Amino acid sequence: MRIDGIPASPGYAEGPLFDLDQPPAAYQGKANATEERAALEAAIGKAVSRLAALVDAADGDAAGILEFHIAMLEDDALSGPAFASIGSGQPADAAWRAALDSEVAGYEASDQDYFRARAADLRDIRDQVLRAMGEDGEVATPQGAILYGEDIAPTRFLETDWSEGGGIALKRGSTASHVAMLARSRGVPMVVGLGATAGPLTGNALLDAEHGAIVFSPSPAEVETFRQSASSFADRQGAARTFLTEPAVTKAGTAVRVQVNIAYPSDVDGIDIATCDGVGLMRTEFLFGKTLPDEETQYHAYRKVLEWAGDKPVTIRTVDAGGDKPVPGFTVEETNPFLGLRGIRLSLARRDIFRVQIRALLRAAIHGNLKVMFPMIATSDEYSQAAALFVEAQGALAARGVAHRLPPLGIMVEVPSVALAPEAFADVAFFSIGSNDLTQYVMAAARDNAAVAHLNSVRHPAVLRLIAAVAAFGRDKGIPVSLCGDAGGDPAAIPALLEAGLRDLSVAPAQLAMAKAAIADVAV
Amino acid sequence: MRIDGIPASPGYAEGPLFDLDQPPAAYQGKANATEERAALEAAIGKAVSRLAALVDAADGDAAGILEFHIAMLEDDALSGPAFASIGSGQPADAAWRAALDSEVAGYEASDQDYFRARAADLRDIRDQVLRAMGEDGEVATPQGAILYGEDIAPTRFLETDWSEGGGIALKRGSTASHVAMLARSRGVPMVVGLGATAGPLTGNALLDAEHGAIVFSPSPAEVETFRQSASSFADRQGAARTFLTEPAVTKAGTAVRVQVNIAYPSDVDGIDIATCDGVGLMRTEFLFGKTLPDEETQYHAYRKVLEWAGDKPVTIRTVDAGGDKPVPGFTVEETNPFLGLRGIRLSLARRDIFRVQIRALLRAAIHGNLKVMFPMIATSDEYSQAAALFVEAQGALAARGVAHRLPPLGIMVEVPSVALAPEAFADVAFFSIGSNDLTQYVMAAARDNAAVAHLNSVRHPAVLRLIAAVAAFGRDKGIPVSLCGDAGGDPAAIPALLEAGLRDLSVAPAQLAMAKAAIADVAV
Repeated sequence: MRIDGIPASPGYAEGPLFDLDQPPAAYQGKANATEERAALEAAIGKAVSRLAALVDAADGDAAGILEFHIAMLEDDALSGPAFASIGSGQPADAAWRAALDSEVAGYEASDQDYFRARAADLRDIRDQVLRAMGEDGEVATPQGAILYGEDIAPTRFLETDWSEGGGIALKRGSTASHVAMLARSRGVPMVVGLGATAGPLTGNALLDAEHGAIVFSPSPAEVETFRQSASSFADRQGAARTFLTEPAVTKAGTAVRVQVNIAYPSDVDGIDIATCDGVGLMRTEFLFGKTLPDEETQYHAYRKVLEWAGDKPVTIRTVDAGGDKPVPGFTVEETNPFLGLRGIRLSLARRDIFRVQIRALLRAAIHGNLKVMFPMIATSDEYSQAAALFVEAQGALAARGVAHRLPPLGIMVEVPSVALAPEAFADVAFFSIGSNDLTQYVMAAARDNAAVAHLNSVRHPAVLRLIAAVAAFGRDKGIPVSLCGDAGGDPAAIPALLEAGLRDLSVAPAQLAMAKAAIADVAV
Repeated sequence: MRIDGIPASPGYAEGPLFDLDQPPAAYQGKANATEERAALEAAIGKAVSRLAALVDAADGDAAGILEFHIAMLEDDALSGPAFASIGSGQPADAAWRAALDSEVAGYEASDQDYFRARAADLRDIRDQVLRAMGEDGEVATPQGAILYGEDIAPTRFLETDWSEGGGIALKRGSTASHVAMLARSRGVPMVVGLGATAGPLTGNALLDAEHGAIVFSPSPAEVETFRQSASSFADRQGAARTFLTEPAVTKAGTAVRVQVNIAYPSDVDGIDIATCDGVGLMRTEFLFGKTLPDEETQYHAYRKVLEWAGDKPVTIRTVDAGGDKPVPGFTVEETNPFLGLRGIRLSLARRDIFRVQIRALLRAAIHGNLKVMFPMIATSDEYSQAAALFVEAQGALAARGVAHRLPPLGIMVEVPSVALAPEAFADVAFFSIGSNDLTQYVMAAARDNAAVAHLNSVRHPAVLRLIAAVAAFGRDKGIPVSLCGDAGGDPAAIPALLEAGLRDLSVAPAQLAMAKAAIADVAV
C-alpha cells in the first residue's frame, strides 16, 4: 500500500515503523506528596540535562530551539501550578500534565500563528518530562526506524540516532518546519503531508523521500524497485561529494557561481569557504526571533560572517519579517500575511527599527565584501526610499566619525511586478531572484499550504519565463542576477534555471555538492 | 485639518459631523420584573418591525442582511438568557446587553474571519434593541450629515435618509464591506481607513470621497476649492447619465461592449437590459452564503437572470468560495486564504458540491444565452478537469432525458500564470480578466489590506502589461477577452484598459453610466 506525500528532505529509508503518536509510558505512583514532588523535580532535572547534552551536539538553529525549551523548563511560573496540585494530593504525572495542558490551551486559542506554534513547544516539554517520569517503561526510538505519525517534536528528532539510517513520515507536517530544516541539513529522509489514511503500524516500510511516498507492507517487487532507486540516489550523492571542492562547471564548460544561503551566523562554522563562492543570502529575520536585537548584536553577527568569507561576497538581506515569520513587537496580524506588510514594506513603515539595522550593516561593511539587498520590493519607489535611508545613515555616521562603508544595494526579485517591469530598476546594483515567493505569487498558491502544493512549481512555464526575463534584462544592462530560493539547490530544477540564463545560484549548505553535480550534468 | 484615507464610494459631501461611536441613549428603568420583561419584548418587536420595513425598501444584498438580523432577533436562543436575567432582578437593558455581549465574545474569539464578522451583526442587533428601548432620548442621524466613527452598522446605513446628501467617513472600515457595497450602489460618498487621529467632533466637515480625504474645521479657501471639485464631479455625473441609454463608443468611434457584474439574481430587477450588453459576471458564491444551495435553488436563480437578459449573454462564474468568501461546510481555514484552496481548486476538491452546480447550469442553459467560466484557474489541467465534469454531467442528464444544453466554457484570468503563459489555454471559449485578484498577486498586496493599499494598483505597468498580453493573445487566436474587475468601472483606469487592447468591460450596475462616459473620452 503506497501513500503519496510531499518530499521535505530527499533520500531513501527502509526499516521498521515506529509510531510517533503512542502516548508516553505509564508513570508509577508514589507513596505521598513529598515523594511525588521529588519525582517531578527529578523528571524536570532529567529532561533539562538531556536537553543540555543535546545543545552541545547541536548547531545554530537546533541549539536555539533547545535553549528555549530549557529556559521554559527552568521557569517556576510553568512548574508552580503542578507543584501546588501535588500539594493538594495529585500524583506528579497528572499534576504536570494538567498544568501544561492548561498552558497549551491558552496558546492554542491565540489568533496568532506565532503563539499557536509555541503550543507545539509546550507539548514537547510536557512529553519530555512525562517520558522522564516513566523512564523504565519508555519506548526508545529504534535505530534505523521510520518514524511515522501526525507530527514530530524537534527534541525527538535530535534524540534519535540517525547513524544507522531511518527516516520520518508525517501525516501532516510542513516542509518549512524546524524539523524539516534540520532533516535537510543532516541528510535524514523526510516526507510530509501523507494524510490521515494509515497503513498497518507494524512491520517494515519503504520511505521514498526523493519523490515523496511511503509504502506499507511492501511486496518483494516493490522492495526490489525501491532498492534500485535508493542505490541510484546514493551513487548520485557519492559522486556529488567529489564535486564539492571544485568550482561548478556545466558539461559545456560554462562556469556557474554557487553560493550558500544561511540563517544564523553560526551556520558558517561547519562550512569550508573554499567549497562555495560566498554567501548569496544571509537572512537576518532569525536574529529578530524573540526580541528586537540592538545595533551591537547585529553588528557582531554580520561581522562574523564577513570575516569568515574573507574576500568572497556576503549578501545580507535586510530583515524580512512578516509573512510566515512573525516577530513580536514588530509584525502585525493579518488575514493574508504573505500578501501583507512584510519585508521592505514593514521596514519602511517602522523606520526606527530599520535604522538600527542599517547602522549595523554600514559599520560591518568595512570587515569584508558586503552587499545588501531588500526583500519584497514591488515598486521602484520602495527601493529609492530604502536606499535614501542608507545614505542618510551614512551621513550621520560620518558626522560622528564612526568607521563605515556604503555597500552595493540590490533587490530581491520575488514580487511578480519587478520581473514583469524590470526597467524601473535599472539603477540597482544587483538582482537576487527569490524563487519560493515568486512562484507562490505567480501561481497564487501559498508555499506552505499542502492543499495547493500541486500548483506551486518553479518549473511552470510562467515562472521560468519571468526568471528568463530578469536574466536577460540583467545581461542587457550589466546588472548581476542570482537566484537564492530553494529551486537553486534542487537537482530537478537546476537544468531549467540554467537554460533560463542564470549563472549564479545560492543554495543551502547541505545542497552544495548535489547542486554542483547537477550543474555538471547540464548541457548549456 | 485634512486626513487622508481610501475612497470606498466616490462623491462629495459637506455637512455637520455625526459621531457614530456615541453610545445608545439611556434606558429608563421600570418598576418590576414584569414591566422590564414587557419593555424588552416591546423593544425587540420594535427593532423587528423597523427591520421589516427596511427589507421592503431594500434590494437583494441589503434585504439578505436584514432578513438574517430579523431571524436572529426572533430566535429564542438569543433572547432567552436575557429574559432569565430579568426574572432574577436585572433591568431589561443590562440583561439584554450582558446576554448579547456574551454571544459577541464567543464569536470574536473564533479563529475564523467568517464568525468574527458575525460578531459585528450581533453588535448591530444588540444596539438596535437598546436604541429601541431608549427611543425617547435617541439621537437620530441628521439629514445631510457626515457620519464619522470607527465603523458603521448596515442598519444604520439603511435607516439614514440620504436624500439630502451626507456621507460616511470611517477610521477603520474596508472598501469590501457590506456598507461599502451599499454605498456604491446608492451613490453615497464614503471614505475608509482614516486612522485613529480624530479632528473636532463638532462643526462642519468636508468629505472628498473621490480622492479619499476628510477636512475638519475647513478654512474658507478649503471650502471654496472643495465646492469646485464637488461641482465638477456632479457635472461629470450628470453628463454621464445621458450616456446610459446609448451603446458605448470611444472618441475615435471604437465600439466597446459594457456588461454588468451581479451578485444576486434580484440585482437585475433594477436594471434596464437595454442599458447594457449583458451580464459579464454573475457571482454564485453568495447563493452559497449560509447553507449549500440545492440544485433547484440554483437552477431557478440562474434561469431568472437568463430570462431577464433575453438574447444577451449571461456569463455565470462557478462558485468562487474561499479567499475572503468563506462558506461554512465547504471552505477550509487557512493562513493565507487568498493563496489557498479557493475557486476552481475547491470545486475540484469537492466534486460532490461542484456537480450540483454543474447540473443546475446545464439545465438553466436552455433558457437563454449562457456562458460559464471557472474562477482561479492556474493551470490548463484544472480547466480540462472542470470541462470534463461538464461533459460527464451532460451525459448523465441526456441519459435521464432531462432538458439541458452545454454552454461555452471559459476561464477567469486572475492567477498571473495564465496571463504569462496563455498558450496553454488556446482551446477555451473566452477569457475574463479578474483585475482585482490579478493585481493583488502581481503586486503581492492583498486587496483588502489597508497597510499595502498603496501598492495595489491596476495601473502599475506590470499589471497593464499582463492585461495587454492576454488581449493580444485573444485577438491572435480569435478568443474573446473581457475584464470584470473593479477597474472596468473606474473612470481613472478605463483609458489604460482600452489602450491595453480591451474592448469588453463588465462593471457594477451603478457604474454603467460613468463607465460609458469615460469610454467616450478615450482617444483609441
